[in-house]
Amino acid sequence: MNELSLHFWMAPAGGVTALVFAWVFYKQMCAASEGTPVMREIAAHVATGAMAYLRQQYRVMALVFIVLAVLFAILALVFELQSAWLPVAFPVWGFFSALAGYFGMKTATAASARTAQAASESLSSGLTVAFRSGAVMGLVVVGLGLLNIVLWFILLLVFTGGGGEGGQLVLITTTLLTFAMGASLQALFARVGGGIFTKAADVGADLVGKVEAGIPEDDPRNPATIADNVGDNVGDVAGMGADLYESYCGSILAAAALGAAAFLGQPALQMQAVVLPMAIAGLGIFFSIAGVYFVRTREGADQRELLHSLARGINLSALLIIAGSAALIHSMGLPNAWGLWGAVVVGLVVGILIGQSTEYFTSASYRPTREIARQAQTGPATVIIAGTAVGMFSTLFPVILVVVGTKLAYSLASGFDASQVSHGLYGIGIAAVGMLSTLGITLASDAYGPIADNAGGNAEMSGLGPEVRKRTDALDSLGNTTAATGKGFAIGSAALTALALIASYIEVIRMAMMRRGDTLLADGTEVAEASLMQFMAHFEVNLLNPTVLMGVFLGSVTAFIFCGLTVSAVGTAAGRMVDEVRRQFREIPGILEGKATPDYARCVAISTAGAQREMLLPAGLAVGIPLLVGLVLGVPGTIGLLVGALTTGFSLAIFLSNSGGAWDNAKKYIEEGHFGGKGSEAHKAAVIGDTVGDPFKDTSGPSLNILIKLMSMVAIVTAGLTLVLTLL
Amino acid sequence: MNELSLHFWMAPAGGVTALVFAWVFYKQMCAASEGTPVMREIAAHVATGAMAYLRQQYRVMALVFIVLAVLFAILALVFELQSAWLPVAFPVWGFFSALAGYFGMKTATAASARTAQAASESLSSGLTVAFRSGAVMGLVVVGLGLLNIVLWFILLLVFTGGGGEGGQLVLITTTLLTFAMGASLQALFARVGGGIFTKAADVGADLVGKVEAGIPEDDPRNPATIADNVGDNVGDVAGMGADLYESYCGSILAAAALGAAAFLGQPALQMQAVVLPMAIAGLGIFFSIAGVYFVRTREGADQRELLHSLARGINLSALLIIAGSAALIHSMGLPNAWGLWGAVVVGLVVGILIGQSTEYFTSASYRPTREIARQAQTGPATVIIAGTAVGMFSTLFPVILVVVGTKLAYSLASGFDASQVSHGLYGIGIAAVGMLSTLGITLASDAYGPIADNAGGNAEMSGLGPEVRKRTDALDSLGNTTAATGKGFAIGSAALTALALIASYIEVIRMAMMRRGDTLLADGTEVAEASLMQFMAHFEVNLLNPTVLMGVFLGSVTAFIFCGLTVSAVGTAAGRMVDEVRRQFREIPGILEGKATPDYARCVAISTAGAQREMLLPAGLAVGIPLLVGLVLGVPGTIGLLVGALTTGFSLAIFLSNSGGAWDNAKKYIEEGHFGGKGSEAHKAAVIGDTVGDPFKDTSGPSLNILIKLMSMVAIVTAGLTLVLTLL
Repeated sequence: MNELSLHFWMAPAGGVTALVFAWVFYKQMCAASEGTPVMREIAAHVATGAMAYLRQQYRVMALVFIVLAVLFAILALVFELQSAWLPVAFPVWGFFSALAGYFGMKTATAASARTAQAASESLSSGLTVAFRSGAVMGLVVVGLGLLNIVLWFILLLVFTGGGGEGGQLVLITTTLLTFAMGASLQALFARVGGGIFTKAADVGADLVGKVEAGIPEDDPRNPATIADNVGDNVGDVAGMGADLYESYCGSILAAAALGAAAFLGQPALQMQAVVLPMAIAGLGIFFSIAGVYFVRTREGADQRELLHSLARGINLSALLIIAGSAALIHSMGLPNAWGLWGAVVVGLVVGILIGQSTEYFTSASYRPTREIARQAQTGPATVIIAGTAVGMFSTLFPVILVVVGTKLAYSLASGFDASQVSHGLYGIGIAAVGMLSTLGITLASDAYGPIADNAGGNAEMSGLGPEVRKRTDALDSLGNTTAATGKGFAIGSAALTALALIASYIEVIRMAMMRRGDTLLADGTEVAEASLMQFMAHFEVNLLNPTVLMGVFLGSVTAFIFCGLTVSAVGTAAGRMVDEVRRQFREIPGILEGKATPDYARCVAISTAGAQREMLLPAGLAVGIPLLVGLVLGVPGTIGLLVGALTTGFSLAIFLSNSGGAWDNAKKYIEEGHFGGKGSEAHKAAVIGDTVGDPFKDTSGPSLNILIKLMSMVAIVTAGLTLVLTLL
Repeated sequence: MNELSLHFWMAPAGGVTALVFAWVFYKQMCAASEGTPVMREIAAHVATGAMAYLRQQYRVMALVFIVLAVLFAILALVFELQSAWLPVAFPVWGFFSALAGYFGMKTATAASARTAQAASESLSSGLTVAFRSGAVMGLVVVGLGLLNIVLWFILLLVFTGGGGEGGQLVLITTTLLTFAMGASLQALFARVGGGIFTKAADVGADLVGKVEAGIPEDDPRNPATIADNVGDNVGDVAGMGADLYESYCGSILAAAALGAAAFLGQPALQMQAVVLPMAIAGLGIFFSIAGVYFVRTREGADQRELLHSLARGINLSALLIIAGSAALIHSMGLPNAWGLWGAVVVGLVVGILIGQSTEYFTSASYRPTREIARQAQTGPATVIIAGTAVGMFSTLFPVILVVVGTKLAYSLASGFDASQVSHGLYGIGIAAVGMLSTLGITLASDAYGPIADNAGGNAEMSGLGPEVRKRTDALDSLGNTTAATGKGFAIGSAALTALALIASYIEVIRMAMMRRGDTLLADGTEVAEASLMQFMAHFEVNLLNPTVLMGVFLGSVTAFIFCGLTVSAVGTAAGRMVDEVRRQFREIPGILEGKATPDYARCVAISTAGAQREMLLPAGLAVGIPLLVGLVLGVPGTIGLLVGALTTGFSLAIFLSNSGGAWDNAKKYIEEGHFGGKGSEAHKAAVIGDTVGDPFKDTSGPSLNILIKLMSMVAIVTAGLTLVLTLL
């Protein structure tokens, strides 16, 4: 077994600390009062609904995992195309991700009534309860994620040998990478299923409740209102958490694999290069926790001040990591330490800037969203056209940020030496890790959103006074902003992670070739020692190879088809919800007079069933396409596919998320009294825009994050199969 | 001078024949009666407006061409980075394209009243007048296009020497390719400007006329109604014509350049390979004319029969070309003649199938559009969501067709020999030529659409009887179908042309390297003889080179930004039109009572000015981005950019065109009496969908055709500059 440096232990230490503080925050939250019996009852409805959803989803998932584990076992044991660890390891990885989702949801649903109650005391108390409950999710994700990585890394170090000189670490890290497929699959279910659930409930509740029956949002007379609140937790807590759990693990492991490849033949350095991403992640946990303690506000704070107090925590964490990682990297003895540190900083900065670009294009404080609101005066058509244009424009800055960030990280890590390709790619991996190093606190601010939203819903339904409602509205409104920037951050990190995964794909191919006994490339170089560029030449992965071009075309269209499927999934599932709500209004007498309680659970069950059914096709596409393309078009077609899906999917995701976010806020801007205010023709037009934007921003857009990562992951896992069975 | 084979003369013969028949059809149309004085007056308004638009556009274009000619002259004469022919040649190419647009528009505007008059005699007469007038456009485009190519080819053959053994033809064909930049620029102005004009007028006319004043479409009391009719000609005749003129010339020249490269060192074969695309195009003209004579119908024919009579003409042409090209290719003595013929057939079949896929997704005869109409019952939001989903799904088949077609053409032309890369790429070029070989008649059926539409408008405004209107409605409705399939064909041919252009980019780079005196690649091969794969390795154009990845990302986002710009351009220009129409209703007394004539010309002028102003930014983007990326990221970044823009732009164009087309036809389906019919809530919702779709299908979608070709063309023209000045 190789010697593990002291730096390595930063990772398990960070992981354990994260879980400890998650426990502390959870206990603090539980100790807070849950308010009146009505408040408790409503919260219980939501909590029960959310758990019912999770149970159903985990049941379906368990089935899928068992089937796949058997398949992988056959591939590994019969055909020897796969590490024999995989069938055991990958369900464990899925389990850990699901566990994080479970804890996060449990905390979030328990926190809503307590946040409303705390807000009835003071704004600052409300913020603290909601934010620290969000932090439970953030810390559980990073804690379980990092501990899981550390555990398996040690396990493989102990039990794996071979792979030639220095090859052992390449073998271990690429094997670890395939395990993350478990987290990817779980993310697919959580994000796509959650996205369909939440919008089916939301659109269904709005179409019948608001539009047909004319009752307000979050009205307890609406049978779908609990499902709507459950949806916020399911989509934005569990879905977002699983999404970023995957990015977090994927980026750390891809960076480790790229590090092992970059320092092949330099054993001491190689181990440090593999350890670095884990150590940065561990460091990030400590500083994220420090940041959480800096989030507080004073009574009567306005929107700007609230936002400022959140930003203070996140920025503090980022600054601490910038300083801390400089010390960390220098102490590790890696060459070009400043270059690697530069990559960390680039990642952090790109993440923050993408969030700010998202805010600019979706917040009513800026021109684009206000322009959409203005266009509402000439009707729904101009609202939709304007929002589409804004969404399309908004792709520019994130793409430029990713492009410039990638190039910069690459150049810094390679010391501006064009021949150091693999060091450059390692830099891209490190940048992704840097971006995600503050995940403990950034995810806290994401999970905060639905908690505040639900607290508002709870206050509304349980009839708390206007002073309290004003405070929960302020907290909720802040949540909308953090949700928007959180989405920008999620897609940005997904893009960097996917890039790192694509880059490490060739290392996996190298291992697969060695496993099946290939020793030489076409040009006579040894497989074990060939450079990346030699692999590229061997497989002709250039852009005039029609197979590569086919791959890029297919990747690009996969993103569109996946979106089409998820958009129409929401339509179908929402249609069922509409039927059910209409049925309850018709068949249960006294609902609309508030004399009878609607059957909330049935609406939750319908949304749950709809989500599970409707996600099958998009999920099958995400898993099936890379497998199929790998088998038909081989390595060059697969790389083309992944690049096409990544580039188109990234722009498409930002387009959909931002146009949806902008429509949402344009509606709210009008509701604040602009262009005729609530009830005006402009408002009606804006509501239509908002409804169109719902599946865009909460289902299709975020689901694309998963698509671009999962496709790379499937390609990585099926690399052995691809090599053996390529048709064309 | 090389010996030109007899086959070559097929091209000039075809070109001259096209012009002769265009003249014959034009004269026949002029001989027909233009109907009552009212009909003549209305037609005169439209004709005057269209010519006013063209004059203004040609004025702006002349300026742009002069500036660019001076720039190219400096690049050529001072820095020797360019052929000295270019500054002279490229305005001539633009002029020929503009000339074709002029003749086409003149014919189309003259034909509308005559079609209405002929329809008052019989349906078949109406169809014949309209279709043969459309054929004038088709034949002028292919005639002028092919003659222009032939002319400059002979000129360069006589005056150009050097380039080494067999290098002369590579030099000549790559030089010719740069000339097509003139046609590309003209297409940009015609398509983007025309697209903005037509939808600004349409949306403006609808928003005030139909929605606010409550008067029907094409009502002479609406000041914007003439501009709306002008727009049909400007966008769908002149714009579509210039678009396909560019594809036609670009595909023939790219195939010629790829042929010269594939048969380098085999002089006799090389000349035949260069001549083949021109000869196929010439042959296609004869058979297109034959097809035109087969388009006729009987009185009382229904929609299906009318469509069938059009399809008969087009399919006959295609079959004749399939048979004729087999004989042609075999008589030319090229090796692997069946393989090359296969590529022609593949191109033709892919073109037809893409058209059929478009029809499936946009015609109310099929499920997708009917489903959108059904969703209209729950309001505008669900209409938009359903249309978005349909548009996204509809990208699948065209992409698969292009991908499979490309691979098939490549494999057939390379004789399934993986080492014959340049023969395979030549096959892709030949497939593009094959697809466009029936352009004479397919473009006729596109240009037919606006003629029938205007005939309907003329009949409406001049108060012809219901029997006549029923006939013009039937003709118009057929026009909507041909417009949809025409758009599919236009984007399909743009994709294949762009692929051929990208493939020939490396040949241009080879010439540019030789011009500046580079003799050896990095691996020691001579530049003059290096294979494509060696160039790929030299420039590291592989997908793990971060520069290439940056390029793909930037190309992908360029497509989105370009769409955002064109969508919002329509919004801005339509806003001005709305203001003007409102002003006229307010300030000119008696307009709405039909007592005063509105100021039609002012509306045309406003749309014209709006189109010119609003197209500057997207046009600048299309020209500027490839130039900039070339200078900063060099050859690998440029190829990445072109591939990214092509793949994303293709899917995006189909998504936008098809969702727009489907919304349009869903509205018409409801108007036929389904789901409540005209005036119902469902109808109102569908009208909103239709308005959203207007800029999608008639501005942004078609403009993307230009973007993907023009970017490749700019890269080709600035290849010399790129080589000298690359920054990174």
